[in-house]
Amino acid sequence: MMDRSNVVAAFRAIQDGICARIEALDKKARFIDDVWQRPEGGGGISRPISRGDLVEKGGVNFSEVFGPLSAQAAKALQVEGEAFYATGVSIVLHAFSPWVPTIHMNIRYFQVEGTQRTDGSEWFGGGIDLTPVYVDEAMARHFHRRLRAECNKWHPSFYAEHKRWADDYFFLPHRNETRGVGGVFFDRLPPEGTDAARADVFGYVQGLGNMFAPLYAEVATMMRARPFAQRERDWQLLRRGRYVEFNLVHDRGTRFGLETGGRTESILMSLPAEARWQYDHRPDAGSEEEATLAWLRKGVDWVG
Amino acid sequence: MMDRSNVVAAFRAIQDGICARIEALDKKARFIDDVWQRPEGGGGISRPISRGDLVEKGGVNFSEVFGPLSAQAAKALQVEGEAFYATGVSIVLHAFSPWVPTIHMNIRYFQVEGTQRTDGSEWFGGGIDLTPVYVDEAMARHFHRRLRAECNKWHPSFYAEHKRWADDYFFLPHRNETRGVGGVFFDRLPPEGTDAARADVFGYVQGLGNMFAPLYAEVATMMRARPFAQRERDWQLLRRGRYVEFNLVHDRGTRFGLETGGRTESILMSLPAEARWQYDHRPDAGSEEEATLAWLRKGVDWVG
Repeated sequence: MMDRSNVVAAFRAIQDGICARIEALDKKARFIDDVWQRPEGGGGISRPISRGDLVEKGGVNFSEVFGPLSAQAAKALQVEGEAFYATGVSIVLHAFSPWVPTIHMNIRYFQVEGTQRTDGSEWFGGGIDLTPVYVDEAMARHFHRRLRAECNKWHPSFYAEHKRWADDYFFLPHRNETRGVGGVFFDRLPPEGTDAARADVFGYVQGLGNMFAPLYAEVATMMRARPFAQRERDWQLLRRGRYVEFNLVHDRGTRFGLETGGRTESILMSLPAEARWQYDHRPDAGSEEEATLAWLRKGVDWVG
Repeated sequence: MMDRSNVVAAFRAIQDGICARIEALDKKARFIDDVWQRPEGGGGISRPISRGDLVEKGGVNFSEVFGPLSAQAAKALQVEGEAFYATGVSIVLHAFSPWVPTIHMNIRYFQVEGTQRTDGSEWFGGGIDLTPVYVDEAMARHFHRRLRAECNKWHPSFYAEHKRWADDYFFLPHRNETRGVGGVFFDRLPPEGTDAARADVFGYVQGLGNMFAPLYAEVATMMRARPFAQRERDWQLLRRGRYVEFNLVHDRGTRFGLETGGRTESILMSLPAEARWQYDHRPDAGSEEEATLAWLRKGVDWVG
């Protein structure tokens, strides 16, 4: 089993580094430090941010929780065991500008104790994905190329596999559209990788954590100066409605957290400041909004 | 088994009557008639409304759907059978004014075919509940007294039982608060009632359908002229965030519909035009917003 303190130290350093970099990028807003305890064991440091020059609402949250594994949680996780340990960093940043996409990152480490199984008792999960209000092809390609370069440092199959995993995960079946342009996503990778792909998974997870802030800075800097008007803001708010739908209806982390008594404010940090719904909204034919919808499908090759 | 055509005729008449009454009350907005077909069998008439003088966004939807019962749907409904038939009227009305509560009504009839069971092969469900942005005690008491009077026409135990059912159903565990001041809710009542409560359940369901529009008119008329400012609008949008959370995370009808390939636009008619989220928002001590939160609990006796 991994030494938990090493994972925690790495995750805390990633949280601190990202917060410092995002504050420098935003130039106006500061993170609030909200330290919380979990009665059953552990706690966290939530760092919400709002009303910045760049970031409208978001958060960079760290948590380390442990205790008895409830039957409900064991069933939801499809594991057997008596106790669990979980630590992770979760980030969502919603920008003011409709040209700057919403970005999400999560890295997590999980242990199950008291299980009869020797396999599957510890694993990492994680990913970074991008949800543009308007899909800019150059931006999406840059984002995916940067992810591929990072993945390739750890295993040659990671980018292709984890890109496909993100396409499948960040998908709204009831809308038949992806949440955004995807990225990478993976779950339940043992620290040493799988039989098919031996790799330093802890290194990979840290690599994603360390690339997050520079990557977001590149994307934001490409887009934040572009002027926008009410039309773009209106579309942004409708797309944020879809973000809310994904997170509350589908996102396993959100649902698992809410169902198992997780800390609601930290879990729902991911929701936008504002969202809108309009019955059967359809963008005008030939519009940029329609072009964006056409990109929101699985299997787009952004690096070819 | 009930004659389906009688149920459909009653439900269609209820939809028409409500739409006419709400248009007269609103004085500005008109319902749009959106007729849809379900490829697997049946369809519906969705009637969205928006940007009225009273109603900001809402809908009065009718549907009649049938076909093979999928394994997924059977499991979710906890029934056995080969085919199903379902018809219902669903209403949500979100008002512009923060003083006018959001109101919801649903009445539904369900048949399972090809089951081995003689019991539980057909039933009614339904309810009316109120979600104020600000709880006005006189308004909530009037609302519950009117529901009790209607319930008492059909069975002396209905109000107490179905009020408790609404308290339990319209509850957000992750917020430890009720969605609003409740109302009545029930599910799986056979047409002739239960052994403990013999009643004309079809009559009861129609009674609720027929009282809906007058009841909403009374509540809206009590509250719509009261002036409001940005403070009340801000609180309204935060409370609408909670409405979205309830509907997408908890509401069984919404989740069942989305998971079984129901018509997304008709199901999500229930969402507000606009909603907001703010990290760990807490109303000021002694404020009207704090007083409202104190009402959002189970078991309040509104008719004593």
